[in-house]
Amino acid sequence: MTTLAAHAPPLAYAAVRGHTLELARGLSEADCQVQSMPDASPVKWHLAHTTWFFETFVLEAAEHGFKPFHPAFRVLFNSYYNGIGQQHPRAQRGLVTRPSLAEVLDYRRQVDERMAALLRRGCSAEIAARIELGLQHEQQHQELILTDLQHLLSCNPLCPVYDEAWDAAAAPAESAETLAFVALPGGLVEIGHAGPGFAFDNETPRHAVHLRPCALASRLLTVGDWQAFVDDGGYRQPRWWLSAGWDWLRRDGIEAPLYWRRGGGGDTSSAFTHRFGLQGLQPLRPGQTLWHVSLYEADAYARWRSAQAGGPPLRLPIEAEWEHAAALAPPGLWQMAGRAWQWTASAYAAYPGFAAWDGAVGEYNAKFMVDQYVLRGGSPATPPGHWRTSYRNFFPAATRWQFSGVRLAHDAA
Amino acid sequence: MTTLAAHAPPLAYAAVRGHTLELARGLSEADCQVQSMPDASPVKWHLAHTTWFFETFVLEAAEHGFKPFHPAFRVLFNSYYNGIGQQHPRAQRGLVTRPSLAEVLDYRRQVDERMAALLRRGCSAEIAARIELGLQHEQQHQELILTDLQHLLSCNPLCPVYDEAWDAAAAPAESAETLAFVALPGGLVEIGHAGPGFAFDNETPRHAVHLRPCALASRLLTVGDWQAFVDDGGYRQPRWWLSAGWDWLRRDGIEAPLYWRRGGGGDTSSAFTHRFGLQGLQPLRPGQTLWHVSLYEADAYARWRSAQAGGPPLRLPIEAEWEHAAALAPPGLWQMAGRAWQWTASAYAAYPGFAAWDGAVGEYNAKFMVDQYVLRGGSPATPPGHWRTSYRNFFPAATRWQFSGVRLAHDAA
Amino acid sequence: MTTLAAHAPPLAYAAVRGHTLELARGLSEADCQVQSMPDASPVKWHLAHTTWFFETFVLEAAEHGFKPFHPAFRVLFNSYYNGIGQQHPRAQRGLVTRPSLAEVLDYRRQVDERMAALLRRGCSAEIAARIELGLQHEQQHQELILTDLQHLLSCNPLCPVYDEAWDAAAAPAESAETLAFVALPGGLVEIGHAGPGFAFDNETPRHAVHLRPCALASRLLTVGDWQAFVDDGGYRQPRWWLSAGWDWLRRDGIEAPLYWRRGGGGDTSSAFTHRFGLQGLQPLRPGQTLWHVSLYEADAYARWRSAQAGGPPLRLPIEAEWEHAAALAPPGLWQMAGRAWQWTASAYAAYPGFAAWDGAVGEYNAKFMVDQYVLRGGSPATPPGHWRTSYRNFFPAATRWQFSGVRLAHDAA
Amino acid sequence: MTTLAAHAPPLAYAAVRGHTLELARGLSEADCQVQSMPDASPVKWHLAHTTWFFETFVLEAAEHGFKPFHPAFRVLFNSYYNGIGQQHPRAQRGLVTRPSLAEVLDYRRQVDERMAALLRRGCSAEIAARIELGLQHEQQHQELILTDLQHLLSCNPLCPVYDEAWDAAAAPAESAETLAFVALPGGLVEIGHAGPGFAFDNETPRHAVHLRPCALASRLLTVGDWQAFVDDGGYRQPRWWLSAGWDWLRRDGIEAPLYWRRGGGGDTSSAFTHRFGLQGLQPLRPGQTLWHVSLYEADAYARWRSAQAGGPPLRLPIEAEWEHAAALAPPGLWQMAGRAWQWTASAYAAYPGFAAWDGAVGEYNAKFMVDQYVLRGGSPATPPGHWRTSYRNFFPAATRWQFSGVRLAHDAA
Repeated sequence: MTTLAAHAPPLAYAAVRGHTLELARGLSEADCQVQSMPDASPVKWHLAHTTWFFETFVLEAAEHGFKPFHPAFRVLFNSYYNGIGQQHPRAQRGLVTRPSLAEVLDYRRQVDERMAALLRRGCSAEIAARIELGLQHEQQHQELILTDLQHLLSCNPLCPVYDEAWDAAAAPAESAETLAFVALPGGLVEIGHAGPGFAFDNETPRHAVHLRPCALASRLLTVGDWQAFVDDGGYRQPRWWLSAGWDWLRRDGIEAPLYWRRGGGGDTSSAFTHRFGLQGLQPLRPGQTLWHVSLYEADAYARWRSAQAGGPPLRLPIEAEWEHAAALAPPGLWQMAGRAWQWTASAYAAYPGFAAWDGAVGEYNAKFMVDQYVLRGGSPATPPGHWRTSYRNFFPAATRWQFSGVRLAHDAA
Repeated sequence: MTTLAAHAPPLAYAAVRGHTLELARGLSEADCQVQSMPDASPVKWHLAHTTWFFETFVLEAAEHGFKPFHPAFRVLFNSYYNGIGQQHPRAQRGLVTRPSLAEVLDYRRQVDERMAALLRRGCSAEIAARIELGLQHEQQHQELILTDLQHLLSCNPLCPVYDEAWDAAAAPAESAETLAFVALPGGLVEIGHAGPGFAFDNETPRHAVHLRPCALASRLLTVGDWQAFVDDGGYRQPRWWLSAGWDWLRRDGIEAPLYWRRGGGGDTSSAFTHRFGLQGLQPLRPGQTLWHVSLYEADAYARWRSAQAGGPPLRLPIEAEWEHAAALAPPGLWQMAGRAWQWTASAYAAYPGFAAWDGAVGEYNAKFMVDQYVLRGGSPATPPGHWRTSYRNFFPAATRWQFSGVRLAHDAA
Repeated sequence: MTTLAAHAPPLAYAAVRGHTLELARGLSEADCQVQSMPDASPVKWHLAHTTWFFETFVLEAAEHGFKPFHPAFRVLFNSYYNGIGQQHPRAQRGLVTRPSLAEVLDYRRQVDERMAALLRRGCSAEIAARIELGLQHEQQHQELILTDLQHLLSCNPLCPVYDEAWDAAAAPAESAETLAFVALPGGLVEIGHAGPGFAFDNETPRHAVHLRPCALASRLLTVGDWQAFVDDGGYRQPRWWLSAGWDWLRRDGIEAPLYWRRGGGGDTSSAFTHRFGLQGLQPLRPGQTLWHVSLYEADAYARWRSAQAGGPPLRLPIEAEWEHAAALAPPGLWQMAGRAWQWTASAYAAYPGFAAWDGAVGEYNAKFMVDQYVLRGGSPATPPGHWRTSYRNFFPAATRWQFSGVRLAHDAA
Repeated sequence: MTTLAAHAPPLAYAAVRGHTLELARGLSEADCQVQSMPDASPVKWHLAHTTWFFETFVLEAAEHGFKPFHPAFRVLFNSYYNGIGQQHPRAQRGLVTRPSLAEVLDYRRQVDERMAALLRRGCSAEIAARIELGLQHEQQHQELILTDLQHLLSCNPLCPVYDEAWDAAAAPAESAETLAFVALPGGLVEIGHAGPGFAFDNETPRHAVHLRPCALASRLLTVGDWQAFVDDGGYRQPRWWLSAGWDWLRRDGIEAPLYWRRGGGGDTSSAFTHRFGLQGLQPLRPGQTLWHVSLYEADAYARWRSAQAGGPPLRLPIEAEWEHAAALAPPGLWQMAGRAWQWTASAYAAYPGFAAWDGAVGEYNAKFMVDQYVLRGGSPATPPGHWRTSYRNFFPAATRWQFSGVRLAHDAA
């Protein structure tokens, strides 16, 4: 196990905390209250839990005569840190209507004031590291606020709009280009984070990986790319699918990416014409970045496209290929950052030599290292300044409510 | 099929509608938004649905140039009337955060104004009957607002209080009396409603039933009565239970009435010491009326108590016995009205000669006449003036979140 | 509680026991082993359980120095008698491959020999009553052997034949007649069993019921009657269905009676052309007796046909109407016995004054008196001599694997 | 994609096929019929499916005028090869009582005769490769016959014995040794199969992997090692568990390895004293090889033992470490082969440069490369001659009914 490292300069506390409130501006107490599925959390819970993190991991350690804002919040807003004590059951977060949103905002305000006082009087390197972690943590919840809220609004038959201007660049210029492949030489390369600057424990240690030569797609898949797959009956033919993917598709009645909607009043024989998003319901346009597919769908698409294209078998990149390419920044390789979380073929696992952080924050990443796959690259929902090349996001293969997209790859001929 | 009958004088529109708002006073938008289980509905939905009823069944028929407040509300707040069109899925009522609570209150206000105008200008007997039905319907939802809210608050580990003074009479004097049995002669009797005054279609027609002589308990079971059953291991011995009841108990891990809580920090070996209610968490007191048991529990208790007492086998009354006794008002028969909905052994079924109302309101009761049991008597959550002797409430045998209690009976020796 | 009554002459022990073996003749050990759903039991289990009944309730009481055939069989082949001790979980009956079929047949043989010795040396009236009950019980399992086996074979894509000649009379002459209605006068009538001869406790006591005048259909519904309902989209229109029935239909994807099969290779747009039965796969013929519908379907059909026919609203008979009509044997009332178990609108409940038998056999019927509906009339699978007019069969409203059919009724004009 | 390679000398057809029958000797038709859970298959199905493999992939390609033994068997005994056509639903394999066991044995016999004729007249290298694949495939099903049968027999309260002498060496001498760790140097190593001799496509291509120095445990964990974990409350403390593992443990009520049984009549407070196996119920002995744990349990144990031992953090080996160590055969490294399938920390994924075989046999391995983990080493249930160092077995992390055990590892200091 290793300790959190202190870095300079830290993210600005007030800016990060303020951005969270910015995301919730315009939401009603009801919008902030509801949990639309067990995987998602209410916005109010996100607001409280990120505050709980500073109260528990910073103020409790740094304040003389520390007193919690409310004893019950210790359990209510603990997400999963067993080292800290009990947690409220995840699937029931949406049932806690009291404390109210106003009380949670008070909680934020009081903790922010105490944090401001602490920052003014200065703190040890260890506490500074905890603060940086708290801010990085809060940025992760900023992305979840958006994805969880989109899911909630998608359950409303009135298709409410969160922000009409959200991701105005949803169909960027590069997406109109023909999909090409950019060669990547093989050999012994290094990936992983090796300071300076903040990184999560799961990005370390930097280590050697032996790669074969391969090629990565020049851009992400688009809505137009995917429509061809849907139109060709891709969701109805088992030959493209991993066995577990086909079982999943049949059990859940999957026919298209999450949030795609049929025209024709929802008649199951009519075509998909729209997708729901934070901008509300929008017509599908070929140049849009494809989002909200599972790893199973990404894998099936690669297999289907291989059969159409006739070249080398297409597949998803492994995460070392992806990170190495990102580090090389080869010419012609677009949309590596900030357009979609890109599924990799790599299961989420400890890097060789990995050691989780000491203490309760060691539960941050290590205990999730099973049954999940790594996504790379960041999305439009990722807060500015949060992402870096070595960043490892991870979700189960069936996950679709994140901004998950696809970059193809193939072995060198 | 028969038409709704107009009665005079009707319930006062403004008083009933105002009482609904009264129940919701002091609740936050979050409290009004959340649906804690599929059987319950959000308070906001109750507020909107009862308004939808007047808009759809009264204003649409009576207003010249009728326009709905919002076209989408026609689907969103339809509960189950297939004759009216589509419905929003019941289990997803809590996910609709927009329209907001304020918009729903506007909806109520606008419909109330249009209703007031209609009442001022007068209406046909048929419309008057629809209005009366709408008010009776709203009173039913007033009771559901309380039961659904209690369920929601019970899911909050902070045990919030809805109203500290709720049911101050929870342990009435009669409950302290020894349980006695009041004899009821048999023979051919009549039950059911035969005007004047409002009744639901399911209370008609009045008809003859042949009864054997029997005896009904002088009072309802109390918390003290029930504690003896719990303490004797009643929930752990299959011999007291109907087969379906034992399966239910094992599947759901049932150990006591709903809302009973253990002391000792919830340790499963400690005794039940409290129950949660609209007043918050309260100590169990022997004289309190017993609530929140299923028909299975009621039946098991009767069997257990028979074995303890050694007299004639105890059982639940059938509904004709109950109604006949209520109509006779025999001396010594207490707590027939307003203390608890009393499980009967009678499945909810059409009375001989029953005809549902004409048109969409014919869906009000008839389509639920299967797989449910009748409860009689009304509860403290039943609005004043709503209940009458012929009133038939009905729920599946496993239901516990209503104010369901128990009156025992036995055959004449 | 009451004791079993001894009757003369009893069913012949050897004949009943031999008939069970007759039903299993031609089945492989595999056919006898498998449990195709939790509601059904393996044939081997039926063979053993009926034997266990005699061993436990007769031999143990009547044999000096009684020793069980195998101690473990006491648990393995106990169905639900909590008074006797533990039971093997119902849904796992099919997993017990040992004892083998041969051992179970040995068990039958040994118990039969001991029973023969007992019968030769004579027994008390009480033991004689237990023997009669054991034989009646075995006959009930004879019917279940057929229904459970039909379900198992229906799961085999090869559509195996149990007996090509089974129910050669499946389309009897009366079924070709136009459906007429036979009037039944109302008034105070008596139903229920009042000796002589065997009856189950649930058929007693004989008691008065007050009936309104009504009319019962002259014959059962046929396959042809039902095809008109299917063809008219009856399974796709909520207006015909009880609310619980519509939920059931949607959850389970119900489109036709159980065992009906589509032509056209199973394509969901092609018509139903066959039904599977103990004779294998057979073409649907209009004159066949309709079987394998739930109470929900029976009720929906009545509502649909009322709307087509325009006369008085059609409904299912209540059991007192049915039994009274059967006792009167009015002219023109056909197919009351032995063609199909006929759903009634009556929930399965204790008759007024009912008392279960004393001791463990008191669990025979009483503990199932909830959440089920009564069927009357007997089916081609009911063993000869088993049924009587007062006989009450009972199953949950969704049950379809029994030979359940429909007789319509209506109130007198 | 690549074609199957022909190797010499192949496994002996008659010997492998005969061994399968040998495993089934002594089983009744009932034993061979039942499917005790969806993951397992009936022995009869294994007997038929392995035969179907030769009929479909060999005889159909090699016989002039090929005719299938029975057209329906093409669907009934296809396991998952979508390229071949439809399959019977996996979870319903146990419901197909016809064809009988005798017919399936006839099927085997006829196919074996046709295969013998083919082998006599000689065949192409491609056909020879298919035959070798068929034999390797059959050996995999031989192991499944044993694991599936053990699961079935474990569901029988009589604890039947399959073979009293099975794995007489269950507590080998090495298991009594103190657990030591054997150092493994790091660097660039090669793993994977590179002929001669048969291998599955998933073992190829041989490729370079960069390893850090590490150490592998000298022997497998034993029952004694595991009892200390159970006794210390390891199954009740979330801190040892992966998040998904803790959820799994709570949902399924896991308290010990599969097949461990409590003494004291099953009372949940009494200690685990026995385990069920193919030899029947046997006392737990400390020196026995530990089997039947999930990856979650293996991982939790490593974390727990690290906390007890105080040395470097213990973990599971990755598969490259395991294979490299096995290839080096370092002194002091015992029980690498044939004692237990050893969980690795490596998700089951394509090796770099992997290409599935051409045609329908390409579905053999590739479509399962998601949501599973690799196990290495072979078990006592693995047929002699089947296993090799590069062999990759794979199952989901929650799997326990295979002979899965644990070898620990740690990073070099």
